[in-house]
Amino acid sequence: MATSTYTVTGMTCGHCVSSVQKEIGGIEGVTAVDIDLTSGRVEVTSKAPVSDDDVAAAVDEAGYQLA
Amino acid sequence: MATSTYTVTGMTCGHCVSSVQKEIGGIEGVTAVDIDLTSGRVEVTSKAPVSDDDVAAAVDEAGYQLA
Repeated sequence: MATSTYTVTGMTCGHCVSSVQKEIGGIEGVTAVDIDLTSGRVEVTSKAPVSDDDVAAAVDEAGYQLA
Repeated sequence: MATSTYTVTGMTCGHCVSSVQKEIGGIEGVTAVDIDLTSGRVEVTSKAPVSDDDVAAAVDEAGYQLA
């Protein structure tokens, strides 16, 4: 298992959190996405290390940005 | 056609707007729901006047409150 932590800006509510969780959760190998709305902290757990580019693309797809 | 205007508090993003639109749009006879996120102003257009209680219930169902 690998864990990576990111900061996502622009999330304002639980719907935003759900959108980001869904997109990052769709990356192959990702098993968990824990998000703290207040801080924007996103912890991604995966079977093998995920590409930062893939995470950035997923966050962008959800409509947000990595800090 | 009837039009009623309400103010909804607590919406922070487009997802919130979509949730409120969906719930109010589900009230029988409602043909349009126009929402301004910044002001919280919600304009409901319907074939016949809608009940304020129905609108309040729909807003509550979406997770928000009438001002």
